[in-house]
Amino acid sequence: MSTIGFLGLGIMGKAMAINLVNAGFDVTVWNRNPAKCEDLVAIGAKLGTSPKSVAERCDITIAMVSDPAAALDICNGPEGVVAGIGEGRGYIDMSTVDDDTSSLISNAITQAGGRFLEAPVSGTKKPAEDGTLIILAAGDESLYQDALPAFDVMGKMSPYLGEVGQGANMKLVVNMMMGGMLSIFSEGISLGLKAGLTGEQILDVVNAGAMANPMFKGKGAMFLEENYTTSFPLKHMQKDMRLAVALGDKLDQPMPTAAIANEAFKQALKAGFGDEDIAAVYKTVK
Amino acid sequence: MSTIGFLGLGIMGKAMAINLVNAGFDVTVWNRNPAKCEDLVAIGAKLGTSPKSVAERCDITIAMVSDPAAALDICNGPEGVVAGIGEGRGYIDMSTVDDDTSSLISNAITQAGGRFLEAPVSGTKKPAEDGTLIILAAGDESLYQDALPAFDVMGKMSPYLGEVGQGANMKLVVNMMMGGMLSIFSEGISLGLKAGLTGEQILDVVNAGAMANPMFKGKGAMFLEENYTTSFPLKHMQKDMRLAVALGDKLDQPMPTAAIANEAFKQALKAGFGDEDIAAVYKTVK
Amino acid sequence: MSTIGFLGLGIMGKAMAINLVNAGFDVTVWNRNPAKCEDLVAIGAKLGTSPKSVAERCDITIAMVSDPAAALDICNGPEGVVAGIGEGRGYIDMSTVDDDTSSLISNAITQAGGRFLEAPVSGTKKPAEDGTLIILAAGDESLYQDALPAFDVMGKMSPYLGEVGQGANMKLVVNMMMGGMLSIFSEGISLGLKAGLTGEQILDVVNAGAMANPMFKGKGAMFLEENYTTSFPLKHMQKDMRLAVALGDKLDQPMPTAAIANEAFKQALKAGFGDEDIAAVYKTVK
Amino acid sequence: MSTIGFLGLGIMGKAMAINLVNAGFDVTVWNRNPAKCEDLVAIGAKLGTSPKSVAERCDITIAMVSDPAAALDICNGPEGVVAGIGEGRGYIDMSTVDDDTSSLISNAITQAGGRFLEAPVSGTKKPAEDGTLIILAAGDESLYQDALPAFDVMGKMSPYLGEVGQGANMKLVVNMMMGGMLSIFSEGISLGLKAGLTGEQILDVVNAGAMANPMFKGKGAMFLEENYTTSFPLKHMQKDMRLAVALGDKLDQPMPTAAIANEAFKQALKAGFGDEDIAAVYKTVK
Repeated sequence: MSTIGFLGLGIMGKAMAINLVNAGFDVTVWNRNPAKCEDLVAIGAKLGTSPKSVAERCDITIAMVSDPAAALDICNGPEGVVAGIGEGRGYIDMSTVDDDTSSLISNAITQAGGRFLEAPVSGTKKPAEDGTLIILAAGDESLYQDALPAFDVMGKMSPYLGEVGQGANMKLVVNMMMGGMLSIFSEGISLGLKAGLTGEQILDVVNAGAMANPMFKGKGAMFLEENYTTSFPLKHMQKDMRLAVALGDKLDQPMPTAAIANEAFKQALKAGFGDEDIAAVYKTVK
Repeated sequence: MSTIGFLGLGIMGKAMAINLVNAGFDVTVWNRNPAKCEDLVAIGAKLGTSPKSVAERCDITIAMVSDPAAALDICNGPEGVVAGIGEGRGYIDMSTVDDDTSSLISNAITQAGGRFLEAPVSGTKKPAEDGTLIILAAGDESLYQDALPAFDVMGKMSPYLGEVGQGANMKLVVNMMMGGMLSIFSEGISLGLKAGLTGEQILDVVNAGAMANPMFKGKGAMFLEENYTTSFPLKHMQKDMRLAVALGDKLDQPMPTAAIANEAFKQALKAGFGDEDIAAVYKTVK
Repeated sequence: MSTIGFLGLGIMGKAMAINLVNAGFDVTVWNRNPAKCEDLVAIGAKLGTSPKSVAERCDITIAMVSDPAAALDICNGPEGVVAGIGEGRGYIDMSTVDDDTSSLISNAITQAGGRFLEAPVSGTKKPAEDGTLIILAAGDESLYQDALPAFDVMGKMSPYLGEVGQGANMKLVVNMMMGGMLSIFSEGISLGLKAGLTGEQILDVVNAGAMANPMFKGKGAMFLEENYTTSFPLKHMQKDMRLAVALGDKLDQPMPTAAIANEAFKQALKAGFGDEDIAAVYKTVK
Repeated sequence: MSTIGFLGLGIMGKAMAINLVNAGFDVTVWNRNPAKCEDLVAIGAKLGTSPKSVAERCDITIAMVSDPAAALDICNGPEGVVAGIGEGRGYIDMSTVDDDTSSLISNAITQAGGRFLEAPVSGTKKPAEDGTLIILAAGDESLYQDALPAFDVMGKMSPYLGEVGQGANMKLVVNMMMGGMLSIFSEGISLGLKAGLTGEQILDVVNAGAMANPMFKGKGAMFLEENYTTSFPLKHMQKDMRLAVALGDKLDQPMPTAAIANEAFKQALKAGFGDEDIAAVYKTVK
């Protein structure tokens, strides 16, 4: 069983690391603010002193940080992952980062002799806690094989998607579809209510039919309760839709529905709902 | 247990009537081409000689015919339902008809002393056979109560939605959402394929996540097999999306995503795919 | 020179009738509220007592009323145009009416032995006063030829467009393009302002280039002054865009840009700007 | 009168430089392929040996090259503009380049002591020859003042738009509006033709009304002749629309009509019309 390093103990990372420890992995954790490591150490994790020292000590080091800048930060510098990775050890960035950042990190790790995987996830806090994330892995295939036991603990599926970049692409495809679905769902609920149907009637019918899906169940209830507690921030969804449309532009793939759904999310952003849940797109539609 | 008349034994009607007979209802059938009644008679149904005679004889008469013209036709004239309905008996039109047709029939039945329900269904051949249709009932509430045992045999849910017109409105809301979902799904699959992912990878990830739904499973497989065998004809979907957008116009409800998805289906219609399955919208997107 | 009857002396009709009188035509006027006839009589028009009597007396009777209901009203009944039109005289409806209304009137006039033209106009109060309307004539071609001298007084162009219905179709085509242009113009101005350009800079550049057009000059100034004084009510434009999109639906012509511009106008309608000028679409875009 | 250097004698640059020489300016020209300088020298221009030598010799050096790479190329290196610009002399890049390229050049020139203006133009070959370009100047205001006499020769208007970047932004705003207008115009013509109107009738009515503009006149004739001879390549228009939509994304400005028009141009690009004129968008709409 590989020894695992885990960098970044935010909401997502902490839940994932706990699952690894509980599954019996030898886990060494590090976080910029070390106080967040305490709960992990309490259940048996070791405490790392820097990204470099974690990468030196572990077979596979996993990062789950909040943005591209943080992802670069823990890699670079005298105390960064690159300085410690050495020959043949593995580094897996599970953060959501853009193409350029992923390439930069991939190149730096590879040139230092390490193996690299990008592995962004689909799913939020609850699936992270339940170990039911969808892990979109791409990059070094031998590292993917080595990491599978850990992926199996953190997620319910973890397909290998090809070279670095394909994990990010899959995430854009998935999120763009989610955004489009939320947009048409918002319009459908709004139309039905204006026509005199009740929200419960509409949701019951939708939930019973061929369209029934967990997202509509969850977000539909939020629409009717006017509850937009953030599970996935709207501004992040809009960013992904923008990137998906841009990818379509690059690949000469027309995507009118996605383009218009993106505008709906932009409208919500303009209205000041960027930090609320993606469900808040409904507020500008209704 | 009410005696049931059943007018129209096409693909849908035949399956629904068989279920009623098999459930023990006393069913009298009629079809324009009487040959189609044989299978029903063979399992115990009685043979009616005209819509009028069926309506005279049965507590509740159900119609399931192909279009508004046929729906009007079986109601009017000396041998029509209206001539036979009499005081207090019930008539349920489960065909998909427009608002105006539904109002005409509702008024004619009511003026003749009968009770009326519109009850269009969501679901195609398989759910009709399995008794898992979604029945969208609206109109006379006492008739709805009387018809519930029959609805329970034909469908898995049959909410009462209010006055005549609300069944049709719910169907537009549902179909508009389905059309929008198919449009964004087509774009997502197309984008993923152009980016180098495989169709199987994309469908696996979608089917594992919060968006997973029976329609994507079914239609996604059809996309990849380039199989557009008609289950729900594309031209009917486009008609419903057009009517949904028109309803939004009437109710001052902006629906940009629906409007654009409607244009995608129009593009498919223009390309000659109107009689293929709704999945054929993918052919003009990819 | 034909004798001309003129029914309807609202803002548009009055200006058009004055031009006919001033050009030397023998004009008989009628208006529901007869007080509005005084100014016309003062400059030499004769006073009609009913639509019927006007139609009886004049070679060509023109109507310019506010809506389809009024257009039907002056035709029907014992004092209506149809009762007076007789063999070979001409009736020209210059009001903006829908297809069905136009067909009803056309049939009634024709069956009474009269000749019929629909001739909706493009242009508002100022062009009506200046005699520079665009007259979109369709129907009886001999009547068109007879009416040309009068059209030349009221408009700057009056093409003959074919059978009844084509005048209305042309008007939809024209108004749909205007709506689309206003929508993209609103977005362009909004984008430029957000990017730090001034409105004057943008309008100057637009007005100097290949896109320069009278509408942008006029509406652009209104945007910057936040002046939405009604020249063409937004709700009428939205209605025409809706009808244009519906016509495209009927003819299998995809029109995504028009469909989306229609949604922008619906948004403005929902925001309560229906009675303001079409320029008010800018308020929901900016 | 300032001495003028002119770098880049393609279709646009040659026409512009000829106008400067003919207006009496002391012009020194340079082109990567020196053969293209002959016509200029024949009418009195001096021949420069490198971008550096031109920049050293002239008060103001103007560049008009084909793309960002070429724009960077003539600036950098031992023989580039930056090496020769020196204290206080001016450099004006009239090429169409992206933000980043413009910033790089601006910084390099400024650090070398020079003054910089970006001044992309709106207009193609004919306006370049006629001296009726629209010049969108932004950057050093004193250089703008010095360059005005030359701008007046090359263009019909040359507003000063603010700091570096605003010239490019204005160009995006203008081109996005043009793209949107072409898209709605294509739909309108297509709808009218399908409804049975003739192209001539539609264009006549449009050209007579409030929407009349030179672009519709020119492109409308091209639609009807199915002539897509390139004046402005479709792929460049699509690029500008994409950048405009991206700018809107950055500034939280929803732009649904522009987003959808962009998709229409993408559709045309996918169909292989990228090197044809922007009018070719009509081929995918009709």
